[in-house]
Amino acid sequence: MNKVEKIAIQDEYPDEFAWCYGCGRLNTEGHHIRTVWEGEETVTYYESGDKFTAIPGFVYGGFIASLVDCHGTGSAALALHRKNGHEPGDSVEPPRFVTASLHVDYLKPTPQGVQLKAVGKVEEIHPKKFKVHVKLYAGDEHVVNGEVVAAFMPASFVK
Amino acid sequence: MNKVEKIAIQDEYPDEFAWCYGCGRLNTEGHHIRTVWEGEETVTYYESGDKFTAIPGFVYGGFIASLVDCHGTGSAALALHRKNGHEPGDSVEPPRFVTASLHVDYLKPTPQGVQLKAVGKVEEIHPKKFKVHVKLYAGDEHVVNGEVVAAFMPASFVK
Repeated sequence: MNKVEKIAIQDEYPDEFAWCYGCGRLNTEGHHIRTVWEGEETVTYYESGDKFTAIPGFVYGGFIASLVDCHGTGSAALALHRKNGHEPGDSVEPPRFVTASLHVDYLKPTPQGVQLKAVGKVEEIHPKKFKVHVKLYAGDEHVVNGEVVAAFMPASFVK
Repeated sequence: MNKVEKIAIQDEYPDEFAWCYGCGRLNTEGHHIRTVWEGEETVTYYESGDKFTAIPGFVYGGFIASLVDCHGTGSAALALHRKNGHEPGDSVEPPRFVTASLHVDYLKPTPQGVQLKAVGKVEEIHPKKFKVHVKLYAGDEHVVNGEVVAAFMPASFVK
């Protein structure tokens, strides 16, 4: 199964949580970030094209922050889902996380026109809180380090 | 002069640096973030509307990160410009900064439908590097803390 065919955690969020501008499958205007397992790591691939410009030729840092953010919450959801004995595709609704904090170190300019790949390692720091360590690659180039603290979505978040 | 009439630092970036998706005045698709002095603080106002959704009713964290990011680089540019004896509107081209690192703490969900206000305090940590401490308000509610380390744009960033 290649990466395109894998079911992402965001493919299975309940409909009412599928409107996120970054990763909601029902948001027609958004980024549609999709996060999958590759072994013990979580991965998001993204073709950023030339829409999100910083300086012409380089990707906008705010978009990169968005990618790290949704990759982080998706990774935490994958991790808790697996801890609960489930994988995307097994018909069990996955948990949903919110971002408590986001940190991004821009190591070098990120070129446009190459595939972006975010790779995450998930660390459990509390039964319902995970820290996701993210490395972002543009093609083969390691351009960004990120860290997301994601917390299980509190009931107060739902209207 | 009210906040709408003030000249923002982004209004005076050279054309080749005015394409940023977050704050470039020439980017027709972007956010058009605009940052001004209010006394010794820097301020960005933003009407986020309902486009950038996290969960329906709440603002997407990736958009908030973008707002903090461009408010940070704009604040650093304002600060160095002032250190050099200049203010927006005095016909001198301002310096341009890039983000070295971005940190965002989401203190509580940010409601949609109210004006966002980012307030920055700029700390010089090196002659060409500034740390911007950001507080984001949604109406009167303090919803986010941010920190941006912004560095004077290196020549290598220009193609």
